[in-house]
Amino acid sequence: MKTKILQKLKETEGYISGQELCDVLGISRTAVWKYMNKLKEEGYQIEAIPNKGYHLLHVPDVLTESEIKSRLCTKWAGKEIHCYERVDSTNQAAKHAAEQGSLHGALFLAEQQSSGKGRRGRSWVSPKGTGIWMTILLRPQLEPSYASMLTLVAALSMSKAIEKETGLKAQIKWPNDVVINGKKVCGILTEMSAEMEWIHYVIIGLGTNANIEEFPEEIQKKATSLKLESGKEVERVPVICAFLSYFEKDYENFMIYQNLLGLLEEYNERLVNCEQEVRILDSKGEYTGVAKGVDASGALIVRKEKGETVKITSGEVSVRGIYGYV
Amino acid sequence: MKTKILQKLKETEGYISGQELCDVLGISRTAVWKYMNKLKEEGYQIEAIPNKGYHLLHVPDVLTESEIKSRLCTKWAGKEIHCYERVDSTNQAAKHAAEQGSLHGALFLAEQQSSGKGRRGRSWVSPKGTGIWMTILLRPQLEPSYASMLTLVAALSMSKAIEKETGLKAQIKWPNDVVINGKKVCGILTEMSAEMEWIHYVIIGLGTNANIEEFPEEIQKKATSLKLESGKEVERVPVICAFLSYFEKDYENFMIYQNLLGLLEEYNERLVNCEQEVRILDSKGEYTGVAKGVDASGALIVRKEKGETVKITSGEVSVRGIYGYV
Repeated sequence: MKTKILQKLKETEGYISGQELCDVLGISRTAVWKYMNKLKEEGYQIEAIPNKGYHLLHVPDVLTESEIKSRLCTKWAGKEIHCYERVDSTNQAAKHAAEQGSLHGALFLAEQQSSGKGRRGRSWVSPKGTGIWMTILLRPQLEPSYASMLTLVAALSMSKAIEKETGLKAQIKWPNDVVINGKKVCGILTEMSAEMEWIHYVIIGLGTNANIEEFPEEIQKKATSLKLESGKEVERVPVICAFLSYFEKDYENFMIYQNLLGLLEEYNERLVNCEQEVRILDSKGEYTGVAKGVDASGALIVRKEKGETVKITSGEVSVRGIYGYV
Repeated sequence: MKTKILQKLKETEGYISGQELCDVLGISRTAVWKYMNKLKEEGYQIEAIPNKGYHLLHVPDVLTESEIKSRLCTKWAGKEIHCYERVDSTNQAAKHAAEQGSLHGALFLAEQQSSGKGRRGRSWVSPKGTGIWMTILLRPQLEPSYASMLTLVAALSMSKAIEKETGLKAQIKWPNDVVINGKKVCGILTEMSAEMEWIHYVIIGLGTNANIEEFPEEIQKKATSLKLESGKEVERVPVICAFLSYFEKDYENFMIYQNLLGLLEEYNERLVNCEQEVRILDSKGEYTGVAKGVDASGALIVRKEKGETVKITSGEVSVRGIYGYV
């Protein structure tokens, strides 16, 4: 109901009377009054003038179900939304909810993560209110070994969402980072619960540095935020909605082929590693080559110095740029 | 401490005095007396004669940590044991414990499962006290796509354990059943939690029909129990301990190669499908062939009628015998 009131307020250019809200939404004047107070508590500035009605003056950048849903046009992505002030990690919250039956496309957001995680248990700094710490739950009919490609799909969707909402050129560092000007702005951690040949669920956690103003010295050269790059405070909800909208389409495209075929051109255009010299560390040692792009299975194609071409899956391999982070 | 007292009682041929137990274990007479009462409550028959001491007359077939540990000689398998009277499923219990930090090799057992699961969410009947409903937790350093082979390892270990403890010929129906005389006696459900290229944990659930005396009519032709096949009540704890002991060795063998190479001969000897005509149902249709065995990756090698050889992974494929269940 709060979502519906918010949508009405947003649709209305001038003032909407309390009575009209009652009539349209089928609720009492008292209920309208209560919802308005709730919205005000969340930071919405709502003008209320007797005999004229309500008018929305300012929309805060709050991560609430109503705010997101009032802006969202998707079929299934983000139809179920859970917002938290503070969680251990949104992936952890998503896992619990998945075990309890949360739906395909459910979204989990937090203002703060007390123990945000990167890949392989590395910690991920996620301070309060300055990031987009979110996880999307998927229930794909897919072989477990294909699930890792979903990370690449999410990276593509997030890079497009950032570009749309900030105008910044967002690229992808294979396999699971979004970078701006050579620095990481978003990291992705995909996890799954599966049987031998059957996925129970996949969760994709995306940590995006939105309005972080300063990073610890040891990561200043390789981490950045949307605010640092654009020079202004970034509203988080539009980025979230844009991501969900792109991701819904990209995911459906992926599921048609059960590979990246339909997304390959777009992906490789955004691939920061493309035509770059990369250093590959695998279990047998270290070598350099030139990254040529990603194939439909999500493997990175690298041409070694002597002309030999190898396909790299992300397993035990670390890909580093010769100069700096990418 | 209860485990230690139980071990002492089992080691002693005649009577062991309360004072000796106090001295050896460093506890009070009152404590000894309390533990003896606990053991009696669990069904142990313990004779207590003044001036002689305690003597163990009968060991009940109870699934308790003490009883299992008093018989177990392993390095890591079953070093942590959780026994439940009733759980939703032992896989579910293992998942929760894994998230809380339970160790590699931890064992989860229940007298009864309220919602035991087979593959793909199929239900698994698991009545009270008549089965071995258990799950082992593993934390292998292994690529997620290799985890499915662990089902085959567990099937091998369980077939050997059943044979050792009952003398029955236990075979394997690829990929995840143990069968006796052509009927299923044990089903295996392997699940995992993983990142793209890194396993958090694997849980292997094994449901073994131990002393079930009657099956519903619709599965009588394809299901059996150790009791039905051997004609006598089977003690469950020895089967569990034998499984853990075999599994520890088989798992370590598997991890050396990260495939089934070292277990292949033993596995194929026990493979009930071997040299049998099988019917394969895959997404493209149905065909028949002769199963020739399993390769090191766990795939079933099938020679089609026209001589062509195909390798089958368990994905969307159903393998059925031409005659009956296997």
